[in-house]
Amino acid sequence: MDGGRRDEGDASTVGELGERAVLSRILRVLGGTSRAEVGPGDDAAVLAAPGGRVVVSTDTLVHGPDFRLAWSSGADLGWKAAAVNLADIAAMGARPVALFVALALPDDTEARFVDELAQGLRDACDALAPGCAVEGGDLTASDTLTIAVTVLGVLDGGDPVLRSGARPGDVVAVSGELGGAARGVALLFERFRDASGVPTAIDAHALTEAERADVTAQLRPTPPVRRGVEAARAGATAMMDVSDGLLLDATRLADASGVTIDLDAGLDDDALRGGEDHGLLACFPPGAVLPESFVLRGHVRERGAAPVTIAGTPVTGRLGWDPHRDWDAGRG
Amino acid sequence: MDGGRRDEGDASTVGELGERAVLSRILRVLGGTSRAEVGPGDDAAVLAAPGGRVVVSTDTLVHGPDFRLAWSSGADLGWKAAAVNLADIAAMGARPVALFVALALPDDTEARFVDELAQGLRDACDALAPGCAVEGGDLTASDTLTIAVTVLGVLDGGDPVLRSGARPGDVVAVSGELGGAARGVALLFERFRDASGVPTAIDAHALTEAERADVTAQLRPTPPVRRGVEAARAGATAMMDVSDGLLLDATRLADASGVTIDLDAGLDDDALRGGEDHGLLACFPPGAVLPESFVLRGHVRERGAAPVTIAGTPVTGRLGWDPHRDWDAGRG
Repeated sequence: MDGGRRDEGDASTVGELGERAVLSRILRVLGGTSRAEVGPGDDAAVLAAPGGRVVVSTDTLVHGPDFRLAWSSGADLGWKAAAVNLADIAAMGARPVALFVALALPDDTEARFVDELAQGLRDACDALAPGCAVEGGDLTASDTLTIAVTVLGVLDGGDPVLRSGARPGDVVAVSGELGGAARGVALLFERFRDASGVPTAIDAHALTEAERADVTAQLRPTPPVRRGVEAARAGATAMMDVSDGLLLDATRLADASGVTIDLDAGLDDDALRGGEDHGLLACFPPGAVLPESFVLRGHVRERGAAPVTIAGTPVTGRLGWDPHRDWDAGRG
Repeated sequence: MDGGRRDEGDASTVGELGERAVLSRILRVLGGTSRAEVGPGDDAAVLAAPGGRVVVSTDTLVHGPDFRLAWSSGADLGWKAAAVNLADIAAMGARPVALFVALALPDDTEARFVDELAQGLRDACDALAPGCAVEGGDLTASDTLTIAVTVLGVLDGGDPVLRSGARPGDVVAVSGELGGAARGVALLFERFRDASGVPTAIDAHALTEAERADVTAQLRPTPPVRRGVEAARAGATAMMDVSDGLLLDATRLADASGVTIDLDAGLDDDALRGGEDHGLLACFPPGAVLPESFVLRGHVRERGAAPVTIAGTPVTGRLGWDPHRDWDAGRG
């Protein structure tokens, strides 16, 4: 590490500092969090896998399609990159233990921004999945700021909860708010862009309390990570992360399980079709006691003509979210 | 999956096809390779961890700093993205079992290119680490083509070989060619760019056989992945991937172990300072029988003033490779 040889107190950029100095700053922020047998610094990390199985998922945030720097701070981005990955492990009924972060940074990225990003990763782990930490990663140069996170979880001897286990008669429940993230991003696009469509800074005073909550749901989601293991212990037959809209994700679960999911009426379009909420959609056997925070949202039926119905009526139209289609991929 | 609803036979782009159709094409190429308990398709993969420990590393290829599309085919890129990650697991004395691939693609990327990239990933696994497969991933839109791979390995009950275990008296050995990848990239920059510096297609007929080998070492490296486990079994005390040049990586190993590495004379500047070879640098106790392909390159001494010496003389000057400094990050 040659970080000590350069002045890092100024608003230096990644290009000025060089890869090793930036890495040393990141490791300073993350310092002391590793619980691995071998943490950052060798060719690879070494982690215990209690129960002899591991659960692994990966998810990426890209500047343009997934976030805009005018709207997200480094801390927001680090938080969100961790949170959306932690949610995928929770959705398997597993306990997240480690993040691996591939960071691709433009040379003009301020070093301070990278510090904040590391702090955001750390804060999200501490808040959402205590015991989970960044155990490795990779730093490279890019024209496009990109954060690819891979998360590792363990089952502690339990079995994973898949999408394919729902059975007719099960109840359908959701943990986590629905629709807020979609309202939040719509609000950002409508209210915080200039005349030519370029994102501008968020003026929090121009937002109601409810609007601020929606923007926060979009920029700093708080998926119910710990509820995943609780759902598994409560006997969940199937579970998944609600990331692309409830209807689309319920369709996937219904197709994987070969059933129809009949949702109760009463959810609005944002809740049904909005993406990026990162709640948990789970099915439980009839009579199961739902874990805290899960709300009954419907029932599993024998497979009918439609994978998903609402109060018995098949769902039509656009189901949810496709980042290649539903966002403009311009630069913020 | 809505892939079936669109015509995929044409030279369609990722933007035209949409995320789900592209994903379905990738899964078709990778079909049948999963050895996981739960492979691609759920929120996360589930894998066995024989021995109760896992080894994890991540490495990214970014268009511009790490490759140019004028020089690398999709198959080359998939191969290299897998190979450089497999090398990190080998360097821990572990056996790679799964890749997780975060792919960020510009909308104008041809779908055929993505098919080839998936095939390259598969081919590298089959050739370099039989039994390892892509077990998950993520697809997103980006202005910059980016391939972030996380690789998972297992120890099968053995212990990891760290950078920190070298002891005075050990011998130093290297498996894999040194210098070829650096000569290859220098050759590409010198001979296959137009007057304004933009990369142009490689004319293989304009290259000697040795030059072709160097270009191949850069574009499709073949790290000695299986030699990692063999080195561990032969008693290697320390090991690492040689990715940033032998001198720089030997310095890291020497610093981690608190020793001085004295390399033999006779290696040229490309071999000493060239990056991206992805061979294995390992230390073995005196008298150990070196595994096949390892060549004796020096000895471990008590820590002196310099971490690395060549025939007893301290090394001076630039040691190796920093992608934020040593490449121009322009677009190819």
